[in-house]
Amino acid sequence: MIKVGIVGGTGYTGVELLRLLALHPDVDVSVVTSRAEKGLRVDSVYPSLRGFNDLCFVEPAIENLTQCNVVFFATPNATAMLMAEGLLAEGVKLIDLSADFRLKDVAIWEQWYGGKHACPDLLKEAVYGLPETNRSAIKKAGLVANPGCYPTAVQLGFMPLIEAGVVDTNMLIADAKSGVSGAGRSASVSALMSEAGESFKAYGVAGHRHLPEITQQLNQVKGQHVNLTFTPHLVPMVRGIHATLYAPLIDQGVELQSLFETYYENELFVDVLPEGAHPDTGDVRGTNRCQLAIHRPQGGNVVTVLSVIDNLVKGASGQAVHNMNIMFGLDEDSGLRQIGLYP
Amino acid sequence: MIKVGIVGGTGYTGVELLRLLALHPDVDVSVVTSRAEKGLRVDSVYPSLRGFNDLCFVEPAIENLTQCNVVFFATPNATAMLMAEGLLAEGVKLIDLSADFRLKDVAIWEQWYGGKHACPDLLKEAVYGLPETNRSAIKKAGLVANPGCYPTAVQLGFMPLIEAGVVDTNMLIADAKSGVSGAGRSASVSALMSEAGESFKAYGVAGHRHLPEITQQLNQVKGQHVNLTFTPHLVPMVRGIHATLYAPLIDQGVELQSLFETYYENELFVDVLPEGAHPDTGDVRGTNRCQLAIHRPQGGNVVTVLSVIDNLVKGASGQAVHNMNIMFGLDEDSGLRQIGLYP
Amino acid sequence: MIKVGIVGGTGYTGVELLRLLALHPDVDVSVVTSRAEKGLRVDSVYPSLRGFNDLCFVEPAIENLTQCNVVFFATPNATAMLMAEGLLAEGVKLIDLSADFRLKDVAIWEQWYGGKHACPDLLKEAVYGLPETNRSAIKKAGLVANPGCYPTAVQLGFMPLIEAGVVDTNMLIADAKSGVSGAGRSASVSALMSEAGESFKAYGVAGHRHLPEITQQLNQVKGQHVNLTFTPHLVPMVRGIHATLYAPLIDQGVELQSLFETYYENELFVDVLPEGAHPDTGDVRGTNRCQLAIHRPQGGNVVTVLSVIDNLVKGASGQAVHNMNIMFGLDEDSGLRQIGLYP
Amino acid sequence: MIKVGIVGGTGYTGVELLRLLALHPDVDVSVVTSRAEKGLRVDSVYPSLRGFNDLCFVEPAIENLTQCNVVFFATPNATAMLMAEGLLAEGVKLIDLSADFRLKDVAIWEQWYGGKHACPDLLKEAVYGLPETNRSAIKKAGLVANPGCYPTAVQLGFMPLIEAGVVDTNMLIADAKSGVSGAGRSASVSALMSEAGESFKAYGVAGHRHLPEITQQLNQVKGQHVNLTFTPHLVPMVRGIHATLYAPLIDQGVELQSLFETYYENELFVDVLPEGAHPDTGDVRGTNRCQLAIHRPQGGNVVTVLSVIDNLVKGASGQAVHNMNIMFGLDEDSGLRQIGLYP
Repeated sequence: MIKVGIVGGTGYTGVELLRLLALHPDVDVSVVTSRAEKGLRVDSVYPSLRGFNDLCFVEPAIENLTQCNVVFFATPNATAMLMAEGLLAEGVKLIDLSADFRLKDVAIWEQWYGGKHACPDLLKEAVYGLPETNRSAIKKAGLVANPGCYPTAVQLGFMPLIEAGVVDTNMLIADAKSGVSGAGRSASVSALMSEAGESFKAYGVAGHRHLPEITQQLNQVKGQHVNLTFTPHLVPMVRGIHATLYAPLIDQGVELQSLFETYYENELFVDVLPEGAHPDTGDVRGTNRCQLAIHRPQGGNVVTVLSVIDNLVKGASGQAVHNMNIMFGLDEDSGLRQIGLYP
Repeated sequence: MIKVGIVGGTGYTGVELLRLLALHPDVDVSVVTSRAEKGLRVDSVYPSLRGFNDLCFVEPAIENLTQCNVVFFATPNATAMLMAEGLLAEGVKLIDLSADFRLKDVAIWEQWYGGKHACPDLLKEAVYGLPETNRSAIKKAGLVANPGCYPTAVQLGFMPLIEAGVVDTNMLIADAKSGVSGAGRSASVSALMSEAGESFKAYGVAGHRHLPEITQQLNQVKGQHVNLTFTPHLVPMVRGIHATLYAPLIDQGVELQSLFETYYENELFVDVLPEGAHPDTGDVRGTNRCQLAIHRPQGGNVVTVLSVIDNLVKGASGQAVHNMNIMFGLDEDSGLRQIGLYP
Repeated sequence: MIKVGIVGGTGYTGVELLRLLALHPDVDVSVVTSRAEKGLRVDSVYPSLRGFNDLCFVEPAIENLTQCNVVFFATPNATAMLMAEGLLAEGVKLIDLSADFRLKDVAIWEQWYGGKHACPDLLKEAVYGLPETNRSAIKKAGLVANPGCYPTAVQLGFMPLIEAGVVDTNMLIADAKSGVSGAGRSASVSALMSEAGESFKAYGVAGHRHLPEITQQLNQVKGQHVNLTFTPHLVPMVRGIHATLYAPLIDQGVELQSLFETYYENELFVDVLPEGAHPDTGDVRGTNRCQLAIHRPQGGNVVTVLSVIDNLVKGASGQAVHNMNIMFGLDEDSGLRQIGLYP
Repeated sequence: MIKVGIVGGTGYTGVELLRLLALHPDVDVSVVTSRAEKGLRVDSVYPSLRGFNDLCFVEPAIENLTQCNVVFFATPNATAMLMAEGLLAEGVKLIDLSADFRLKDVAIWEQWYGGKHACPDLLKEAVYGLPETNRSAIKKAGLVANPGCYPTAVQLGFMPLIEAGVVDTNMLIADAKSGVSGAGRSASVSALMSEAGESFKAYGVAGHRHLPEITQQLNQVKGQHVNLTFTPHLVPMVRGIHATLYAPLIDQGVELQSLFETYYENELFVDVLPEGAHPDTGDVRGTNRCQLAIHRPQGGNVVTVLSVIDNLVKGASGQAVHNMNIMFGLDEDSGLRQIGLYP
């Protein structure tokens, strides 16, 4: 059994890791930390876990975690970077669900996340944990930077088009919509149900932190500067991301459906829907699956890709478990064989 | 492997059976019927099942089902009663999720459900499938009448009090609230999101079909006429039932918390929360669990029981799978080890 | 024009006062205070008010308010009591939407709200502002204690029964459900959409602050101790309260429908629905109206009253405007002629 | 008083007309038709209207409507076109909220709406009722084609850019999101709360009927073929449309904020928010207002316009009342002075 530690067990990605790992056949969750809830039983904070977890929260100290084979950071940004070197030195593998190790360029990180990065040297070493594009590096990684939720949905939709060179990367548009759980489990006025319910709005239009992450990854494929307009919106629901992607076609003859089906034919967690489909976030609720559909409206020169994920699973904790499975040579879908909770 | 047939695979209880049974280790879903969708792939109607089910819907004819060891009826009322005798004669076990076999008195059935019952003789034989109160009969049953959603939540909350004789059964009140999936997956104006969203109302206050079912079962415990006021309400959410139960205490000295804990100590799917708790439907979402809390507000002479279930799981398809597990001698939680999808 | 001040203009009851008063023909909103937003334009915080309000928030100091004819307190509890005497001394009339002046017994106030009451002498003078039962006192009042949201819905439903003496007041039950705007506009985890959306739970079952308020008022009618069990619940919607009330009938011959219709025949804001109706919170959304329906399920000895209001209007700011209209001799529905925003 | 008739009073746009017109000072609603509800009181179907409307539904026959000065059609498509000539011949003015008279080219109408148009000659005569671009024609019109909900939000956002010639109209993108009330008040599975709640999806990506309407109108401005990709999505809320519009800038030096402010400076119902704003559908709920914000993310060469309306008001019934006000020389905001119902 792989011994697992979770730092930051009281946010939504933390409790989602607990949900997934409690039923993972190859894993034993040994340590869950929370500074605020230290000493409390985990299942007193999360009654959904009663009967599946009898741990108490402990202090997030390195000595509490060195016994683990792998530690997940489900923490706010700028926390994992303070503990990463210490744990790596003890031979513990790390999967960071925050943004500390996603950007390769420390200057860009500091521009978008503020403050100084605590261990810029680790940025080179960190492996970006999108299995569909980076599997072999993840296998050997000691430190995985788990992708952001929006970047996951957007990259999976754009990647086949960009790799095939069939779209003009000078005017890519990602119009993305997320449920409110993406805002996390800390008290805030804007995520109150009275604010976010029965209403719809965009946010961060001038610039969202996931923009440089997406751009960095798409640039790698293309080897040149991709021009992306990224607009996130808040949907009055709890879970789910729907990214609607637009790109000008430069190869009018390409067979889009088969391009995507071939690209993802060996991927367990990316499901290309039949032509004409409209994926629904409700069909992937609670699962690690991305469902995609590809359209060319009115036979015109714009390709529209629809990409849905559960932001807390494929967009965070499920992808983190997937990365762990790859790092430890387990079946990739171990602990992740779930069916979408519809309706 | 137990061969399973599902009649009526296109309603919410049908697709929920498909979700649960697809991952059940001891079961092979062999037949799914739907008159309307005959010939279509199941996963073309329910994209959440892609990769987990490659069947096509077939005609709901007896000859299509005789190969099965057990058949679930996830049909509207007055359908199972037309096919039950034929299938039982072929040695097929039946679990009916509709109301055809729940009431023992055919006159009461005909009063509440209208029309004539097609096989009143089977009513005696049918076993009411609430495992917590009826396990031994279920074990030997050929035909199980799976309880209604409200009756499940209400009985589990009242049963310990009534059996212990500590409340006055002359003024029981069950104020129950359900998500809209309880209304099923057929087109109706009242279940439109524009009607049911951002609003709250009671319905069926004058008399709801679940009232005689609950009364019948509570009367059996008490052996005399129980007087119950039952008020169902529609909640602007998809899944979940919350029953708030009130009863006048006649034994002021009873220790309510330990009464409930003892009553359910061997039950896998009933979880008595610590004193002072407020169960949340969100904590049992997607699971076969009932969570209960018991209060005696202001130390007065009214006991208030809070009971939550997922109406589609413990209130329907999960309980049906539980019944199947008992009927076939499987582990009771086989296929039902799920953790609530919170948030 | 009546000059109005609003203390605490940034909570939901404050902004709802601004919405209603901006279109009130006899009123000029002169001052809106907010310590936190001092100096900001009101419509920069609330874009819905653009074009209807060009004030800036000012400091909540007495000298900023003495020019007003009436001041509304839309503040947290224990704020109005600090400024009330000073403003009353200047001849300003006060309408307090908080709980500072609702309870007559200072000991009970201090038990339920904590701390010491700053001006217990004013409790006697304060008039409880439920127009339907207290109109003549409100007319002459200098200080009105605007009722709580739950107490409004519950009293309007119980009052006709208790005054007529047709129910046993020893076992009254009020099972009440509220949208999340009742929790106010301050950051809290429990009111996050991720917590409160797609879920349903009770809270405060052991004892909620609205219990002593309701009991105090019902006791006045009956002249003896009323025994009430009050259970509030949180509904995944923004606005609306639905109270489901239960009482044992002691007069089996009473005509309930006409009892209610007669009781409220001259009331503009209480609408008794036809027999058999199920009022919906959506039908009173945005209005100062209470809709009621009376049932006697199965012809039994329990009367069930269904009572709906918009918690922010009839349950708070609309009722406050109604009180102002009465205090200043205006048409009672001045500024309050709205139709429910359905759907 | 202007005598008003409403044909199709039982859909959402019909009841919304009733809400707005009941409080309109210059109007008397004389006739409301409904074939299905004929003979029933209007307020028995819509309890929100109790006290504001004492009519009964009548048969939608021409002779019932000739007494009216103006008739609104709040009917499904292909209904108004059957009665329009008859009513116009009687001197009745018509405002059609359906799509029967929006498209000028009968071939395009028949391609998108199916069947044969019943009175193609009236298409020339009909005036497209977007007051912001067509006021003078509306003033003199006998037959106004009230715009679709999406077309309203999209045109108001694109119009200033296209008229100023500052964007490349060859790659316009309108990513639009609507609450479910846009689907109307007829029974359908896809608009059930269990389907549309807690989920998000696109629909009609291959081609939606509002595409030719938007294109027709934008082409008029530009005088050449505009290339638009239009993607509608369904949001789990009742009311509101948010259109997110993208266009490549060809004039890098244009001052976008002042361009929009100038364009709409005399418009009562279009409100250009300050720079950097993110309009929220909740701020215009229940009102005839469009709120717009203009962004140029990262200072790049794409302009992003955010446009919100209430689909039932500015997107349907409110705009229809606005058109009536213009046609009859009333104050443009008569009956339309409402403040958004926030929260």
